[in-house]
Amino acid sequence: MNITLEQAEKMIAAAKKKATELDTKMNIAVVDGGANLVAFARMDGAWLGSKDISIKKAETARYFDMNTGEVGKLSQPGGSLYNIEHSNNGLITFPGGIPVKNDSGDIIGAIGVSGSTVDNDHAVADAGASAL
Amino acid sequence: MNITLEQAEKMIAAAKKKATELDTKMNIAVVDGGANLVAFARMDGAWLGSKDISIKKAETARYFDMNTGEVGKLSQPGGSLYNIEHSNNGLITFPGGIPVKNDSGDIIGAIGVSGSTVDNDHAVADAGASAL
Amino acid sequence: MNITLEQAEKMIAAAKKKATELDTKMNIAVVDGGANLVAFARMDGAWLGSKDISIKKAETARYFDMNTGEVGKLSQPGGSLYNIEHSNNGLITFPGGIPVKNDSGDIIGAIGVSGSTVDNDHAVADAGASAL
Amino acid sequence: MNITLEQAEKMIAAAKKKATELDTKMNIAVVDGGANLVAFARMDGAWLGSKDISIKKAETARYFDMNTGEVGKLSQPGGSLYNIEHSNNGLITFPGGIPVKNDSGDIIGAIGVSGSTVDNDHAVADAGASAL
Repeated sequence: MNITLEQAEKMIAAAKKKATELDTKMNIAVVDGGANLVAFARMDGAWLGSKDISIKKAETARYFDMNTGEVGKLSQPGGSLYNIEHSNNGLITFPGGIPVKNDSGDIIGAIGVSGSTVDNDHAVADAGASAL
Repeated sequence: MNITLEQAEKMIAAAKKKATELDTKMNIAVVDGGANLVAFARMDGAWLGSKDISIKKAETARYFDMNTGEVGKLSQPGGSLYNIEHSNNGLITFPGGIPVKNDSGDIIGAIGVSGSTVDNDHAVADAGASAL
Repeated sequence: MNITLEQAEKMIAAAKKKATELDTKMNIAVVDGGANLVAFARMDGAWLGSKDISIKKAETARYFDMNTGEVGKLSQPGGSLYNIEHSNNGLITFPGGIPVKNDSGDIIGAIGVSGSTVDNDHAVADAGASAL
Repeated sequence: MNITLEQAEKMIAAAKKKATELDTKMNIAVVDGGANLVAFARMDGAWLGSKDISIKKAETARYFDMNTGEVGKLSQPGGSLYNIEHSNNGLITFPGGIPVKNDSGDIIGAIGVSGSTVDNDHAVADAGASAL
């Protein structure tokens, strides 16, 4: 089971709504079960550099089927996954990437958000992921 | 003047409508005046490899402010721009990428479409570009 | 609003003057609002490796609309943006990159400087940014 | 012997003058004897995609110490250097890149120009190269 474009666009709409409530400007990316981009939106005035980060967060969340921040806890100096960010053409391992499941609990994709503090990024990603 | 996300989403909606009319499944990308991605959509079942092609078509159209097919006419063996595709991390120079102008005639971005024949790709890109 | 070549060359001239006063040899890069290179100069004898660093500093400053050193404070081990440098084909997050604004306060580009200590790099970038 | 920044800036000034005479908008790059960028200028409104092409033309001219168009004659299908463009992270082998010599005839760098027809690109590069 893969995420559909309709589902991805629904997630992006919910994420944009949350971003506006938080008075932030976000880049929002949704990938499918194969970690391939399905939909993307950069809000007007959002950081240019966050385009790549939002996509990498979504990819990272699907690559390892966990929130990006969880990977980041293990990739610190001395950690068991130290500098894992060098793999896969660059991972982003701070919060803002969340896997997306269907009703049966199967992972069908992931969402990645970047453009503000990591707390805001995660909150917006969560709003998107919860829209399904 | 840069394209807005609202304009980009309007273009993608028009392109999706046209793609459905033509019974095709497309990847559709919109970049702004700086050739940076603003919005993207991959229709369910569309070719995975066309994600990158649609983005590169949009970039190529903005890089040179002309339809991608025009660049391709000049990049053939013996042509004046032979193998220009090796620049800019890879150009795509067959039809499907079109610059987008505002009412004053200024280029504010570009659209790139990939997923079917180049004739269909161009027709869908044109439907998107004409939606503004 | 985008920076013009004339403005970029004025910034580079001011930066070179400051670099000479500090008895340093710098690489100086200016990007526009789309983070695309507008002008560049490598002073005679300046480090070869600083070419790429100066360009990446200018890009990084525009990608996130802040001084590069600010990003670096957050990207340390344990910080909220740890290893953000893996995005965007490589960021540089120590001082020497500064966004450039017009009179209305809109960001129109950025300058990046590399070739000496980060304090000197920042001082030269600041001289360039202040020349407008 | 390497080109100096002063020489490179003199070449860019001459190239810009010629570009204006031809009513064109050019990207102009100068590399040194080590094929490393010394100076660059993108004229207002010049093609974004020509930034990379102008730099690659200058590099290509210095990599092989000949005009880029000469390489292109040999890189056609069936030619002895077919698809040489795949090397060195991408060559550009159509006209617009010219090696630069000092008074003793030693090659000290190269200039690359992109932004119009290859004839205009070459004419502007030649104006720059002749300025020394």
